[in-house]
Amino acid sequence: MIIVGEKINGTLKAVQAAILERDAAFIAELARRQAEAGADYLDVNAGTAPGREEEDLKWLVEVVQEVVDTPLCLDSPRPETLAAVLPQVRRPGGLLNSVTAEPGKPGKVFPLAAEYRFGVVSLTIDERGIPKDVETRVDIASRLIEEAGKYGLREEYIYVDPLVTTLATASTSGKMFVEAVREIKGRFPEVHVISGLSNVSFGLPLRRTLNRTFLVLAREAGMDAAIVDPLDDELMVTIQATELLLGEDPYCRRYLQYCRSRKARV
Amino acid sequence: MIIVGEKINGTLKAVQAAILERDAAFIAELARRQAEAGADYLDVNAGTAPGREEEDLKWLVEVVQEVVDTPLCLDSPRPETLAAVLPQVRRPGGLLNSVTAEPGKPGKVFPLAAEYRFGVVSLTIDERGIPKDVETRVDIASRLIEEAGKYGLREEYIYVDPLVTTLATASTSGKMFVEAVREIKGRFPEVHVISGLSNVSFGLPLRRTLNRTFLVLAREAGMDAAIVDPLDDELMVTIQATELLLGEDPYCRRYLQYCRSRKARV
Repeated sequence: MIIVGEKINGTLKAVQAAILERDAAFIAELARRQAEAGADYLDVNAGTAPGREEEDLKWLVEVVQEVVDTPLCLDSPRPETLAAVLPQVRRPGGLLNSVTAEPGKPGKVFPLAAEYRFGVVSLTIDERGIPKDVETRVDIASRLIEEAGKYGLREEYIYVDPLVTTLATASTSGKMFVEAVREIKGRFPEVHVISGLSNVSFGLPLRRTLNRTFLVLAREAGMDAAIVDPLDDELMVTIQATELLLGEDPYCRRYLQYCRSRKARV
Repeated sequence: MIIVGEKINGTLKAVQAAILERDAAFIAELARRQAEAGADYLDVNAGTAPGREEEDLKWLVEVVQEVVDTPLCLDSPRPETLAAVLPQVRRPGGLLNSVTAEPGKPGKVFPLAAEYRFGVVSLTIDERGIPKDVETRVDIASRLIEEAGKYGLREEYIYVDPLVTTLATASTSGKMFVEAVREIKGRFPEVHVISGLSNVSFGLPLRRTLNRTFLVLAREAGMDAAIVDPLDDELMVTIQATELLLGEDPYCRRYLQYCRSRKARV
């Protein structure tokens, strides 16, 4: 499974403080630890006001790429910010997070991705908001994939996020997400499917168990990437366990290797 | 999910000691705590030598039914033991654990189940041993279900255990089990599918995570019963989380209720 480390995110209090104070050591440590724990990409999100986001994100990128070689997942809702920061990213093969099907968005983000050969986290949301059913999620995903193709982005560059909503307000939201994953992977086998997981449990007790269990079910349905905390050991072991149980880990090699590396770390 | 509490099992050292010393308080406590934690059945297994098993199992049954009303899951590989102990079981609607397709077994166990209206844990094993493939598991399950029917046992009385083997020696064993579950539930929707889970992780590190993840995948495929430790809180929450995520828990009612009862217990 493709792991995008989520911890360098300015919407988290401690990270925001580090950004405002230009505490490079704090950010560098988050980068190093996530990379060591097995992150394939590191999300970097400044989470600050539009007026200073670009400058903050550039600083974050600089700090992170000083300490690790892990590709970045540039995270901003503003295509302009992505465009401004991208030239500074030294490591190739990163991700842009994110595009939606809202008017104007695809035409700004996909060309950037094509130019830099970056993958794109593509949210199944359009001007009507987050869909309430499976079909609309799949429709929006199809439209985004088609749109990306116009800019020369092959399916493997697209990371569809079918946007799970909390079970607290719709107890079928987990099932709906899993069905959307199965449908999207069935129609577009080369496309990646990704999720941030944690929205599923918003407002409910024992969130970590819910998120973990959700990941197992979504992984079985074909989700192959997740934006998660790679320092959450139980979650990371669960991912290895899922792939082993699905018969994808001959001789338990990756599972045993993970357990050994974990032992060395803990 | 139907939970069979596994803790009163004489193959465990402390339980064996309690059986040999007739330490009723120890056994009663195991019964009470498992029932409180939500066990639907309590497995009782003396695990002692054939010469004394019957007497030991009778004593266990007596102790357990003194303290809880939970139906029992009488556990012995010997049909003679089941036959001798059954008349003493006061609580109706229990289970017999187990029958196999080995010659002579079904003809001894199914009539007992039919007479007492007990369910039967039915292992997919015959004179050739544990099958190495999905098809043979499904074939044996079909034969057992057909055989049970001859004694008037409807499908809902059959708890097929497709027998998972450890991933350590065959890394596709989890996948194979899950496929067998899906196939059996597809063909016989009224039949229950049950597993003891823990064999899947034998010889591997981090067994509890593997067992838990296995349960999520098997539950998704249609397994609706498990022989587990109901005092394993993380496992029990995972079961509730799985059912919620599969869209089977309207308004999160059972999940929230479980979280509340858990809070009162912990």
